[in-house]
Amino acid sequence: MSAEQNPIDFWFDFSSPYGYLMSERIDELAARYGRKARWHPILLGVIFQATGSQPPVADPDSAKARYISKDFHRSARFMGLPYNPPSRFPLPTQNAARAYYWLHGEDCGKARAFAHAVYRAMFVANRDISSPDTVLDLAAAVGADREQLTAALATPELKERLKKECDAALAAGVFGSPHIIIDGEAFFGADRLPQIERWLATGGF
Amino acid sequence: MSAEQNPIDFWFDFSSPYGYLMSERIDELAARYGRKARWHPILLGVIFQATGSQPPVADPDSAKARYISKDFHRSARFMGLPYNPPSRFPLPTQNAARAYYWLHGEDCGKARAFAHAVYRAMFVANRDISSPDTVLDLAAAVGADREQLTAALATPELKERLKKECDAALAAGVFGSPHIIIDGEAFFGADRLPQIERWLATGGF
Repeated sequence: MSAEQNPIDFWFDFSSPYGYLMSERIDELAARYGRKARWHPILLGVIFQATGSQPPVADPDSAKARYISKDFHRSARFMGLPYNPPSRFPLPTQNAARAYYWLHGEDCGKARAFAHAVYRAMFVANRDISSPDTVLDLAAAVGADREQLTAALATPELKERLKKECDAALAAGVFGSPHIIIDGEAFFGADRLPQIERWLATGGF
Repeated sequence: MSAEQNPIDFWFDFSSPYGYLMSERIDELAARYGRKARWHPILLGVIFQATGSQPPVADPDSAKARYISKDFHRSARFMGLPYNPPSRFPLPTQNAARAYYWLHGEDCGKARAFAHAVYRAMFVANRDISSPDTVLDLAAAVGADREQLTAALATPELKERLKKECDAALAAGVFGSPHIIIDGEAFFGADRLPQIERWLATGGF
């Protein structure tokens, strides 16, 4: 398989602001270099517990947390993307992630549209994406069968699928969100987009 | 005082790889917009203890530490800067920081040349910048009087000066290195250079 055929892996949590920023750019960037991105929603709680990493905003009263909160806004403005700070943050995202994988089994295009809808619901429209009803509404809006998805979300198979994705993320060295892997090279954070672009353009530097 | 006259504040630890990357770009970038940078070497150990932050490579065996070690290299290549991983890392930097402030009292230009020499000694030439002899050698090479600096390093005044800079950093919300503050707006990390440039060019965005 040539480099052009190898997909780029995009690991993220639906509750990650920098993941949202990356989600709005990675497909277009990959396509410019003849590549496709494979999206993997995962659970940062699982990743942090397994790796001993801390979330960037562990203490909401810290100087770092105040900075990062401003940086979310400014980075979105810098990239020309809408951003409204969610009133509930962070949120559990297992329902959204499982719905993504179910949709992906049905139709990749619907899964991608759903993922964008979930991120924009959280970081633009201030909706509670942890709610099963919101997840079902967003899935139905991209054409999913609400009854079938409701049934699927209760199955052990879908829970197992998400667990396997988290295991695969850990095996790949993922410790946060967003995490991009291109031909074995890892890039952490939306601020690595310029390096990702040069990597794609030059085949490594 | 107009924005053009207000200095940009550059807070850093001499043992910070991303601080080294920033140090090679910030003066030139500031000058392009009619600004000057005021350099403040500080001690990250003091900052981490006061803020409860963790160093990025707290656990050297973690996936995050392995990633960051590769990212130091790649970010340097991306910026066109030399980088050799120091065999001793991190290092205590109070001698280098105190020597910087003493030199600054003597001659700003010598202090700046010394700061570059310390960073390049650590991240290009793999020298032990924690050693008082190395610090004195580097200072002498930019024209400092070795005897006078030796005497100054033993005085309580110089220790107090560094302590005051660390206190000022904490008061300004600094939680890591490099940390740039422009007219009250904070930018953390060498990867914020594109945002810093747009901020300088537009007066805020």
